[in-house]
Amino acid sequence: MYPGFLHLIDILGSFAFAVSGAFSAMQRKLDLFGTLIISFVTAIGGGTVRDLLVGNVPVSWLHNGNTLLVIFFSAIITMLFGSKLRQFNTALFVFDALGLGLFTIVGFEIGMQKGFSPAICIALGTISACFGGVLRDVLLNKVPLIFQKEIYALACVGGATIYYFLYRSALHGDLSRVICILLIFAIRIIAVRFKLSLPRVYLK
Amino acid sequence: MYPGFLHLIDILGSFAFAVSGAFSAMQRKLDLFGTLIISFVTAIGGGTVRDLLVGNVPVSWLHNGNTLLVIFFSAIITMLFGSKLRQFNTALFVFDALGLGLFTIVGFEIGMQKGFSPAICIALGTISACFGGVLRDVLLNKVPLIFQKEIYALACVGGATIYYFLYRSALHGDLSRVICILLIFAIRIIAVRFKLSLPRVYLK
Amino acid sequence: MYPGFLHLIDILGSFAFAVSGAFSAMQRKLDLFGTLIISFVTAIGGGTVRDLLVGNVPVSWLHNGNTLLVIFFSAIITMLFGSKLRQFNTALFVFDALGLGLFTIVGFEIGMQKGFSPAICIALGTISACFGGVLRDVLLNKVPLIFQKEIYALACVGGATIYYFLYRSALHGDLSRVICILLIFAIRIIAVRFKLSLPRVYLK
Repeated sequence: MYPGFLHLIDILGSFAFAVSGAFSAMQRKLDLFGTLIISFVTAIGGGTVRDLLVGNVPVSWLHNGNTLLVIFFSAIITMLFGSKLRQFNTALFVFDALGLGLFTIVGFEIGMQKGFSPAICIALGTISACFGGVLRDVLLNKVPLIFQKEIYALACVGGATIYYFLYRSALHGDLSRVICILLIFAIRIIAVRFKLSLPRVYLK
Repeated sequence: MYPGFLHLIDILGSFAFAVSGAFSAMQRKLDLFGTLIISFVTAIGGGTVRDLLVGNVPVSWLHNGNTLLVIFFSAIITMLFGSKLRQFNTALFVFDALGLGLFTIVGFEIGMQKGFSPAICIALGTISACFGGVLRDVLLNKVPLIFQKEIYALACVGGATIYYFLYRSALHGDLSRVICILLIFAIRIIAVRFKLSLPRVYLK
Repeated sequence: MYPGFLHLIDILGSFAFAVSGAFSAMQRKLDLFGTLIISFVTAIGGGTVRDLLVGNVPVSWLHNGNTLLVIFFSAIITMLFGSKLRQFNTALFVFDALGLGLFTIVGFEIGMQKGFSPAICIALGTISACFGGVLRDVLLNKVPLIFQKEIYALACVGGATIYYFLYRSALHGDLSRVICILLIFAIRIIAVRFKLSLPRVYLK
């Protein structure tokens, strides 16, 4: 369905998400099995929540052996070469940001195909991209990172909103997708580079 | 489907649930986005769990833009006027108790329409009303409040049980609904007024 | 569908899972209602997650009054006789291990009926058997035990893998099931007896 470069982003994104899950699990000193599960949950959790909400069952990863293999080997590699992999932080950040963009688009498009309103499609895109990390943090007994730090989910909301207008325009589908992915990517780079984050609103 | 006053309770209940979610999030010092998500999860989480369990997909809030707007503005208002809103604690408690009643009924009725046994329908009503708060607490990394304090879920179980008998009787539907909502409302008031709570059963 | 002894294992397994849930809840000093909920979640959570993932809705326990009754009375008994029940730790361990085996098979078979790949069926069996405990720990605000200690999920993976080969062989269905249950049972006994656990992979 998608051309090759989107498949590549899918693989790189799944890799980055799975590695981030394995890192978090290893910091919590989980065992081999626990680390594997957290890798999977981080990489496929967002798509799973989206599929369940819209009634896309069996959920997509049950039929998607290739992605599961990518995640499995990503987790194994992280467990074997964890300390070394951390030297490639920048690469992992890039893959994660690209994956964030692609997963947002996938969620958005599933919403459009099902005929939901634009706001719901944007929400579904954001859920697809972000809720794997939410489930990871819940399973590791932490308040989800994306509720507290950095601009992460907001990048998806922004990218999906722009994508909605591109989607409606006469622009070719893949071109729109690339623009959206690059936009989310750029927001992430800027947010991390300039340490931007959303304001917190306490109760006094 | 429902007359105006039930719609009004729906809006007031969603408002109270969203505000309670936003307050909890703000106490945890989440950022804007996190606070918004916790508001939504608190208000629609119970119905979402119920819809998923019975196979009511796409889950109802995906098609219910009005409720989402109410929740969105409730969260924004709470973030803007949090300290002032707390002066209206009594009003919020009243709205919450009314919402608890209505959401119990909605869950119960969906169960009956699907032909489940009365006990399951009572459970579905209770889940609809209470699991938003459970998800809120899980996401905020706390043991769910309703497992520990006050009579909250039990009010729903009691109200739904009475409603079952009213449902079977010749009584007019809306009258039954009002009685059930008032009953759950009364149990909540009495429980909080007299600081009633369920016994805890420790292991010695 | 199943002969009597598998029904018996189902009841004993549900009993053991519900008791383990009630014990965990009582250690956290939850109230009556919270303890009841944790019992249910522990006993039916795994099957619920599996049913949701494969689209088996309404999820099976909504139609399975007998299991719910077993769980309900298991929780009540644990609350009433908790300290005494702990003297039967060995019996509870045996029931839990038998239940683990049976629930793995049930999940595996549902996967095969739906036409999933063997690896997915093994995963579904493991999820059915283990995710009740995961949800229990998440609701009690702990990192899931099975991600950290002992060989638990791995017993299911091992048992389900063997079962796959038995399933394909000419062996009679019930005989295969018994072998698989006994195998998972044996792995659990050996793991606990010799304090075996999976290695943890930290980040230095």
